[in-house]
Parts: sequence; C-alpha cells; structure tokens
Amino acid sequence: MISTALTQLFDLRAPILSAPMAGIAGGALAAAVTRAGGLGVIGGGYGDRDWLKSQLAAAGNTPVGVGFITWSMAKRPDLLKLALDHAPKAIFLSFGDLRPFAPLVKQAGIPLIAQVQTLRDAKVARDEGADVIVAQGTEAGGHGSIRSTFTLVPEVVDAVGLVPVVAAGGVADGRGLAAALMLGAAGVLCGTAFVTSEETLLHPNVKAAAVAATGDDTLRSSVFDVARSIDWPEPWTMRTLRNAFSDQWADDFDGLRSNAAREAARYAKARDAGDTDVSAVIVGEGIGLIHAVQPAAQVVQRIVDQAEKLLAR
Amino acid sequence: MISTALTQLFDLRAPILSAPMAGIAGGALAAAVTRAGGLGVIGGGYGDRDWLKSQLAAAGNTPVGVGFITWSMAKRPDLLKLALDHAPKAIFLSFGDLRPFAPLVKQAGIPLIAQVQTLRDAKVARDEGADVIVAQGTEAGGHGSIRSTFTLVPEVVDAVGLVPVVAAGGVADGRGLAAALMLGAAGVLCGTAFVTSEETLLHPNVKAAAVAATGDDTLRSSVFDVARSIDWPEPWTMRTLRNAFSDQWADDFDGLRSNAAREAARYAKARDAGDTDVSAVIVGEGIGLIHAVQPAAQVVQRIVDQAEKLLAR
Repeated sequence: MISTALTQLFDLRAPILSAPMAGIAGGALAAAVTRAGGLGVIGGGYGDRDWLKSQLAAAGNTPVGVGFITWSMAKRPDLLKLALDHAPKAIFLSFGDLRPFAPLVKQAGIPLIAQVQTLRDAKVARDEGADVIVAQGTEAGGHGSIRSTFTLVPEVVDAVGLVPVVAAGGVADGRGLAAALMLGAAGVLCGTAFVTSEETLLHPNVKAAAVAATGDDTLRSSVFDVARSIDWPEPWTMRTLRNAFSDQWADDFDGLRSNAAREAARYAKARDAGDTDVSAVIVGEGIGLIHAVQPAAQVVQRIVDQAEKLLAR
Repeated sequence: MISTALTQLFDLRAPILSAPMAGIAGGALAAAVTRAGGLGVIGGGYGDRDWLKSQLAAAGNTPVGVGFITWSMAKRPDLLKLALDHAPKAIFLSFGDLRPFAPLVKQAGIPLIAQVQTLRDAKVARDEGADVIVAQGTEAGGHGSIRSTFTLVPEVVDAVGLVPVVAAGGVADGRGLAAALMLGAAGVLCGTAFVTSEETLLHPNVKAAAVAATGDDTLRSSVFDVARSIDWPEPWTMRTLRNAFSDQWADDFDGLRSNAAREAARYAKARDAGDTDVSAVIVGEGIGLIHAVQPAAQVVQRIVDQAEKLLAR
C-alpha cells in the first residue's frame, strides 16, 4: 500500500482524489471513489443549491469532500455554509481568492484543500493555512491555466514546506501516480480518468467521444464559456476536445458574441442531445491514456496497482 | 547506475541528453555532457556552416550528436552531409518533416533521434525508423508546441513499441528524471538545466536572469521570432522568460511588424549587450528548479544522484 502524508491525513488506502468537476462529479462518483480507498469530492459547480443538496444526499453516509469554484461561490457564500454544515471530509477551493473563505473552513475544523495553478498562488495558499495544496497543470481537463504539472509540482513542493502537495493535470494511470510521487507529490487528483467512469453524470455519447480521443485532440480555450455565457475571470480557460464548434469559433469570439443567442440555443440543444460536434467534451490531455468506460472503483484500483508495480521495481 | 534502453543503445553512464539549442549548445557543452556520462548534442542552428564546423572542432575527439531544426536544414541539406561526414554519435532532427532526411541518416549507419511534439508525429518517426523518439512537452524552453510532457510521454511510449522514448520539457532535476522513467521514458533530454551551465555560449546577464526566475515567469509565444525576423512555421512557438519587450509586443504582432527595422536593431543591440529587458532569455518552466550556474558535468551528476536516491527508496 502506498503511504504518504495525504493518505495519513485523510486515512486513505489510495492517494487519489477525484476532481470536483462542475455538474459531472456528483455524490455517486464521490462516494464511489471514497469507498474505493481514495477521497471523492463533489463538484459544487455554479451555485445551484438544490443540486448540491441532492448530491450531498446521494453520497449518503460515505465521507466525501465538497469543492467550489471560488469566484462563483463568493457570490453565494451560503453554499459554503451548507457544505460545512454537512461536516464534509474536506472543503476544496480553486479558481479565485481563497482568503475570505479559508478562515471559515479552518474555524469549522474542516481540512482545507486549495488548488492552485501558479507558484505564486501556492504561496498564498500556504500562508492561509491550507492543509493540502493541489498543483494543477495545464494538461488538466476543464478549467485551469498555463503552467504544466511536470514543473509546477516540484516547484510548489519546494515552496510550501511540510504541506502535502497533490499533483493534478494529466494523471490518468499508474505511471502518472508513480511519476507524481517522484516529483515530490503526496498524491494525485484525477478528473479525466473519472469522466468516463460509470458514475459520472454525462451523456453516453460524451463518454464514447472521450474514450475514442487521443491527447492530441484537446484545446485550452474560452470558446465554450463564451458559448454558455459563463463569465470566467482571467487567467482561467477550459480544456476540452476540439470539435466542429470550437473549430468555428475559437479564433472568433467577436463573431460568437455577435450570434450569442442563436449559438447559446444551439449549444444547449446539442448538450442535451449528446451532440459532441457542438457541445463540449470536457477532458484533459490524459484522455489519450483512457480506453474504456469503467466503474470508478476499478479506475482507482487500476491506477494504484500499476503504480505499486512500478514503484516496487 | 540507471540502465535503460537509451544507455544501452549509446553506451552511456547517465540517461541524459543535452538539447541541441541553436547558438547556445556548442561543442564545449556537448563534449562536457558526453564526458559526464550522458550524450551531448551540438545545436546546428539556422544554417551557419562555419559555426557548425568550428563547434564540431571544439568537441574534438569526444563523441557527440548533431541536431538540426529540420525545416531550416531542409534549405541547407549540405549541413546534414557535413555532420554525417564527422560520423556523429547521433543525428537529432526536430521541427519539420523528417521523411526526406531519415533515409540519409539510416544509410550512413548513424542513429537517428527524432524529436516530436505530438502523438501523430511520433507515429511518423516510428514509421521512418527513428532509433530514439524524444517526446517534447510544452514546458520546454525554446521552440516547441502545446502538448505537455506528463501525458505526451506515456502516450508516445504506448504507440511506438520498442523504440526508446526520451522525455523532454520540464526535466531539470533528479525528480524529473525519476518521474520520466516512471512515465515509461528511457531517459531525458535537458535544455534549461544546461542553459545556465558554464559551457553555454551566453552572456553572463542572461544566465543571472535565468537563475533568478521562477517557472511562473515564462511565456510561449512567437514574439521574439517576429522581432528577429525568423520565419518559424506553425505550430512551433518559443518559450522564454517574459520581459519588457514581450510585455510590449506579445499581443501586438502587427505593431511589431510595423516597426520591424527599429525593433530588430534594438533587439540585436540588447542581445549583444546582455540586456534581458529586451532580448530573450530562452528557458523553459523548469528554470524554477535551477538555482546556480554550474559546470555541465555537475548538472549531470546532480540529476543522476538525486534520481538514484529516489528510485532506491
């Protein structure tokens, strides 16, 4: 069994967190990851209180974390209170200024996991008392920034002293876990590896498109945020598969905005229908290492087994 | 000692290649890396025959490789012949279509190292009989593309069968070497780790600026190629430190081109004077892991010692 500062902190059998992917990582996925020995994290998303309550209920008595898009949660701080009232295993904050919220989490006695995309923000998280710092590289699916996992992780490790660092972005198999441990991480956070798992809240066409893709097929852009009229602040952009929609608009945001109503309607219809030529398949570069739809527990076991074999050599 | 398919192929004591950095990696650096147990590679650069001859002479009897920017060498294929006539330890090709040149290298009985930035190009290199494939991630300094080391390496490993794969981009210490081996690589190629070595052909101000930087301080852009009027084809861009010049022009190539003569003169003057506010400090994200100017032999030893300790745990 791989024992690290992360597994000791949360009493885990596997040093693996699932990413709190908005609208995708619900209670079923989070609970399955926790039951498999890791730590599952529900994605708090963009402020839908009823959805969050239902997903907390879906996790049942299985201890899970709750993650927030910090800039979005800042408009609905009642959601953080809702999560804290459930005594989650951790609160996970990413994408925004965590300083107004870190004290609330710490005072509640809940471990604070802070995800960062730069060395600069890692130092802020350290100074705010984060219990775990997730260093997220640009290869990650969904929102992120420009630095890469391979250098961000060791540089953050060197900067934050004894705080356990978790590697995120591009970790999709046991080779990635073993590599992350060599870089000094105490564990990994996986998003893409779980996107295709049976428990995610996604159309089957989306999972099929993801499984068929290679790592060459992704794009980091704001095009789908513009299409959905979600006003993400800089510097965060979203990695997805390229498709006909992004080919049309990724270099023409002005054109997309000029046709906002029409394209938003087309996008929403495509998403509901599982039309992946138009709607976003939100995965990272690690999708090239994923070749099947599996239950989340098997994903955890596959990653751990492969890493243990590599580390034992 | 770390033994891999790469060390066996070239009879190395360290699974480390130095990058053929144009104008920077001359005979002194390449020979120092080879003497330290790795494989040094002279950077053939942009077609200066006399410079290449002088650097081959500077390497003396120490066996080194010779690297080319393929699209540039395609205009001066006599340089490939010049290199082959010296019976180098390897020919290293990157950035362009290697298919017209791979047969010449193979027929000369010289090992062919092909550097690629995508899974697609890795398959081409495999099909052309490359003896080693370097999978270069976007975190690399100098020219490169958008995919990241952490996912590109294992995906290429899975695609190319028994061809040894070398990880490039972001490898600057022993943690990076150990991680690359876990990802399935047979070795690493380091550029940034050697930029600050004593043997590189760089102004002391450039090395000082590099040592002082963090990985947050770099930018991947074409701004310095536009400034130097080097017409790099897509999809390749160059990672450097951000500075006052890139802050001014990176989002305004039209403006830069409108002032091309003036800015080119300003750039050339700054480069000769070691003015790093204007001229490019060409390093990758791994610069945040480099804290001193060292002889190249010490760089090789530092990386190997640290990796061996990590792998022995």
